[in-house]
Amino acid sequence: MGTREQIVDAANRLFYEQGFESTSFAAIAEAVGISRGNFYYHFKTKDEILQAVIEARLASTRKMLDAWADASADPLDRVRRFVGIVITNRGDIENYGCPVGTLTNELAKLGHPARAHAVGVFELFRTWLREQFEELGCETESDDIAMHVLAFSQGTAMLSNAFQDGDFVYREVDRIDTWLSGRLASRPSTDGAR
Amino acid sequence: MGTREQIVDAANRLFYEQGFESTSFAAIAEAVGISRGNFYYHFKTKDEILQAVIEARLASTRKMLDAWADASADPLDRVRRFVGIVITNRGDIENYGCPVGTLTNELAKLGHPARAHAVGVFELFRTWLREQFEELGCETESDDIAMHVLAFSQGTAMLSNAFQDGDFVYREVDRIDTWLSGRLASRPSTDGAR
Repeated sequence: MGTREQIVDAANRLFYEQGFESTSFAAIAEAVGISRGNFYYHFKTKDEILQAVIEARLASTRKMLDAWADASADPLDRVRRFVGIVITNRGDIENYGCPVGTLTNELAKLGHPARAHAVGVFELFRTWLREQFEELGCETESDDIAMHVLAFSQGTAMLSNAFQDGDFVYREVDRIDTWLSGRLASRPSTDGAR
Repeated sequence: MGTREQIVDAANRLFYEQGFESTSFAAIAEAVGISRGNFYYHFKTKDEILQAVIEARLASTRKMLDAWADASADPLDRVRRFVGIVITNRGDIENYGCPVGTLTNELAKLGHPARAHAVGVFELFRTWLREQFEELGCETESDDIAMHVLAFSQGTAMLSNAFQDGDFVYREVDRIDTWLSGRLASRPSTDGAR
């Protein structure tokens, strides 16, 4: 990994664990173990690093969504991989919350111009989920269902972070799973032909 | 309102709108329009102000929950008042998210010792909701249902803040309302005696 990638990687982690505002330029340089001079060669401002971090998150999210799509031909199975993130990442979530939601909210509070760019990560998830529900025959309601599943992930992450209660996370995953099964059983395509 | 209360009030607002970390001592003094000397007479550190802000939020939350309890004899009607917050406060939520969840998460990321104190506001809501569901006959499941309703509020607030989509908030409120009706229809007390 090149120096630039190491900086972005360290900043990505620090922004998640400590927040964007409270992570200093110096802390990132220290985490990478490089001189100020070398650091400034790659990035002049913290906002430039933020932009690179958001780009990296967009790229890794696209990669993850593509991998989930490739891993199963069944869109419901793919959606379950998304739902399962709150279990897979529960350690980090208990400590720091959801990286997508918390950065977006911090940038909103800061009135930061990169806010819309950061919301792009949510948009990737939303679009991908919508596509799965379209494939499942949910038609015009696909986007509403996608947003509800996203809301599940955010609500679960926020309370998991506040209460650090693993059982709660499993209960919410079961609940959204049951809700999805019910929602899909009543979709237009199953009312008609079958 | 005395000077101390004015400081706490201004800090409460600024911590919500800008975040705790990015709100300076000086910004709070400026918002209140008092001298540094007068300010230091009341608070020596930002952490002292934070403690007072959390106390104020605990007190105002208790007052609001008591008022909701007094306003209706029907626990489901009381719960609907909680659910309705995401509509009542949707302007602020679109701009800044939920004040309870976002402060709790920021303090978690900062590793701040006041984190548990801030979670106390969530605990007030959780306990109050649980009591309503106990009164509705949900017995041992009352706390699970309370947590699910809290998760609804947090998920809705986070996505409302990200996408600033008012229709989404109304849809989620309808959805949790339908879910609650279904959940209450299947509670133990209605399976038995009736």
